[in-house]
Parts: sequence; structure tokens; C-alpha cells
Amino acid sequence: MGANMARRLKDCGFRMTAVYDVERRRAMALARELGCEAPRSLPKVTELADVIFTVVSDDAAMEEIFGRGEKSLLVGAEGRLFINCATVSPDAQSMAEDRALAAGAATLEACMASSLTQARDGSLYLMCGGPEEAMERARPLLEQLGKIVRHVGGTGEAARLKLVVNMVMNANTAALAEGLGLAAALGMNLTMVREVFAETGAASRVLQTDGEDMQNREHECYFSAAHAAKDSGLALRLARRVRLELPVATATKRQYDRMVKGGLGQLDKSGIAEVTFHDRGVVLHR
Amino acid sequence: MGANMARRLKDCGFRMTAVYDVERRRAMALARELGCEAPRSLPKVTELADVIFTVVSDDAAMEEIFGRGEKSLLVGAEGRLFINCATVSPDAQSMAEDRALAAGAATLEACMASSLTQARDGSLYLMCGGPEEAMERARPLLEQLGKIVRHVGGTGEAARLKLVVNMVMNANTAALAEGLGLAAALGMNLTMVREVFAETGAASRVLQTDGEDMQNREHECYFSAAHAAKDSGLALRLARRVRLELPVATATKRQYDRMVKGGLGQLDKSGIAEVTFHDRGVVLHR
Repeated sequence: MGANMARRLKDCGFRMTAVYDVERRRAMALARELGCEAPRSLPKVTELADVIFTVVSDDAAMEEIFGRGEKSLLVGAEGRLFINCATVSPDAQSMAEDRALAAGAATLEACMASSLTQARDGSLYLMCGGPEEAMERARPLLEQLGKIVRHVGGTGEAARLKLVVNMVMNANTAALAEGLGLAAALGMNLTMVREVFAETGAASRVLQTDGEDMQNREHECYFSAAHAAKDSGLALRLARRVRLELPVATATKRQYDRMVKGGLGQLDKSGIAEVTFHDRGVVLHR
Repeated sequence: MGANMARRLKDCGFRMTAVYDVERRRAMALARELGCEAPRSLPKVTELADVIFTVVSDDAAMEEIFGRGEKSLLVGAEGRLFINCATVSPDAQSMAEDRALAAGAATLEACMASSLTQARDGSLYLMCGGPEEAMERARPLLEQLGKIVRHVGGTGEAARLKLVVNMVMNANTAALAEGLGLAAALGMNLTMVREVFAETGAASRVLQTDGEDMQNREHECYFSAAHAAKDSGLALRLARRVRLELPVATATKRQYDRMVKGGLGQLDKSGIAEVTFHDRGVVLHR
């Protein structure tokens, strides 16, 4: 993801000074491609850039890159702007902001509701959270990355909204798998069923993106089942804090957890069909 | 529903000979409007018409109108075509067909995936199940009622497909209510949230039809919560027969059951927001 964003920004005329990845070989290959440096340490990244995009996988990684020690991105960070693009918890976004402010830097969250292809061609959907000034400073870059760039509120708000979006998307995906799974078990033609779904109240965005893949068992990963489990889990944690019961999201999360436990976490979210359809031979213990 | 279908067919030049309703006053008012008869008995309806549309509320009503006794539509039914438009179980459709065949009549199921307005203006979505001959005989009438008329298979197939469609629609509706309910509890602007949903993987047909109503608590009935509970229940019964577990549909059904038990069954299906949002003051026992 980060690599495609970097490629896109370079295409748009921005100067890329450094790239970093925990797998150093990857960073070096990308640095060669982009004609920039691939520093061995995070503080060096901060030294080389005015604006730093971060795309990490979870809260633990955010904690690490925005740590308090010598290896943190925040060493020598005065005046820098960090744009955090991973879907992590609102708390992690707030933690990063607090520590960045203490270091004289600013942060903006820019959550992406799209995938690799959209990063490469600059058609991401970006939900941003953070102070107005950070938003305005980031805007020229973000507008090259996203076809829609929306400022939804203060720090943490974009993460919260993204989690709500993904919670609903995951539930719709699980519901679609159940509908197609039942139709298959009843001997129906799934191509016809999908056409009917598309014309009726069963229509959804995930029907367009995942319906055919569920039918054909093509689960190449755009958004993994493991991520779906994580995001629905984070959303449900928010719900518990406000004492809200969400039984459909809970049932959905359980299905994605089953996939992860059964070793299917790296399949695309459409792979939920594999644990729903009953002729798919995936036997998982609950 | 039946009344609007009758009005539409009359507008299209078909001769309406009789209308019937368990509430006789209703039938008489409609008969006056359409200039036809309103017989006191079902056999009289059959006597007066070549093609008879039935739109009843459940399996029990199907059992009654296609009964074996003297009060049945099947008395003197030789040569008649019955077009059954209610969403009932596949078993009820097959029962009606078997008994009609024994009486020398034919049946076709024509399940509707749309509502009152569409019936009136001839833009219904019709899924039909039954023999080819019945389909061809019904087609000139159905094409005036529906913008899409689809022959999906033999008797029972349309009912099965309609139940699968409604099961997915109901689950998407429950998921939408959970997403908006969580967003509301987190203090988000729901108009903005709905806009973001519409642009992302959370988009769905029910977002378009029910999202704003959930936000504004407008639950005027197009498709009742009681019907949603019934249809999801029938779909889950089919699933049990083929030993398929559908946890999301099950959680959805439970929510609609709670509405029915709490006296909210006559609200539109969007009313599920009333039992999901936590500030709506609807206290229901589980």
C-alpha cells in the first residue's frame, strides 16, 4: 500500500526523499525504483522528510514507530507532519498525536476505504481526522492520492468512522455469503441468484466486489479476513464502551475469527464463503 | 397490494370480473371503483374469472383458500390459472399446485420483490416459479405488472429465491442499523456517516431505502418488521433442512423477533433501528 502511494506521489511530481519498511530488502528495492534513500532507522526518515506517511498493520506497530525511545519517528521531529493511513484504533491515533505534539510535530489521520489499485492510480477514498491546519497542509498531497478526500472531524474520528464502515461492510459480506450459501445448498444457479440480488433489496457494494468471487472460490486478497476480524473487533470494542449490543456484527466477527483460527486469515474477506457454504470441505472447530 | 395490482391491470385494459377480501367492505369498495363484482364466496370468484391472482399473508391463508372443502377457490376450477403472489413457503406453493392440478387447474407463483407503489404503476419485480405453459399464459398480465418478470424455475423455486433475497436484505438492514446506531452513540453526524457509507464498502440498497428513515425515526410501513421476522424464519427453516448454519441471519431474525414481541411488528423493517440505537427509549425484554 505504502509503496503504491509513494509511486503515485512521485508520478505527481512530489519529491520522495526516503522509504522505510521492516523488511529492509523491500525498502531498498523501492528506493532504487523511486530514486530515493532507504534509511536503516526511523529517525533518519524523519530527518530526510517534511511530511511522513505511515501505513502500519496494527496498534502495536503504531506504538513502536511513535515510541518514546531513540528509535522513534519522533526523534528530531520538530515541524514535521505525520499522515497516518493505517486502520488502527482511535486510541492509537490519539496517542500518536499527543506524542507528536510534545515533539513539536503534527499528525493527521487519513484512513483509506479502498485498496492497492486505488492507491496506485490516485483514486483512494480518504477519511481524514485531525486539526484544520494539518488538514490544509496535507491536502495537496492527499488530493493526488484520493478521488474523495473528506475531513470528518478531530483526531480519532476518521478511525472511528472507518471502523463503523468496515463493521457494516463485513456484516454485509457475511450476509451475502449466507445468502449465496443457502441458495447453493438449495441447488440454485448462483449466477442467476446474484443477478436477482443486484436487482432487489439484497443488493450491496459487496455483492459487486465479492459475490462472483464467493461463487468461484477466488479469494485473492484485497482486504484480508484477518483484517476484517480485527476491524469488526475494534468496532465492537467501541460499542461495548458505549454499552451498545450489536448482535449481527458480533455474529460476523465470530465467523471471521473462525477463519483466522482455521488458518484462512490471509484469504480475502470474500473467503467467508468457505466457512459458510456447506460443500466447501473446510472443516473448522468452533 | 392486490387492490393496486387490480387497478393497474384494469388501467392496462384487462377486464376485472371479481375481487375478494376477508374484509368484505374493502372488497365492495374496490369492486365499486373497478366496476366488477365482489362475491361473498371464493368458489364464486373462481366461477367469474379465467385467471385468479392471490395475495395472502401466510401459509395458513394459502391452506385456507386452496382448501379441500366447499369454500375453496378450487371448487369448479377446471381450466383456471391461479397466480400466487404472496411470499409464503415453497411447501405452500407446492401444496397449492398439487391441489390445483387435481382440480384440473394450473398455478404459477409470482413473488414480488417490491411494494405498493410499484404494484400501482406496473414496475414490480416478479420472480416466477412453475411450469412453462403457466408462465406463458400468465406473461401478458405479468408484463403489465412488472418491469422485470423472471422465470426462475419450477413451483417453489420463486418462493425459495424470494426468501433468500429477503434473508439477505433483512441482514443488511440489521447491519445498517448497527452501524448507524454505533455512529450515533459515538456522537457522529449521521447524515455525513450515510454519505460515507454510500461511497464505500458499506453501501447497500437498504442504505438507500432505509438509512434516512432510521436516522429520522420514520418507520411508516412498506415492508413490516413482522414480515421480515417471518421471511428470515422461513429461510432459516430451509437452511436447517439442508443442515446449514447461518449465524448472521439467525442474529437478524432474533432482532426482528424482539420487535414483534415488543409490539413493534407493524413498523417498517427500518424500525429495527429502534431496538438497536441505545437512546431510543425502546426497552424490550429478550
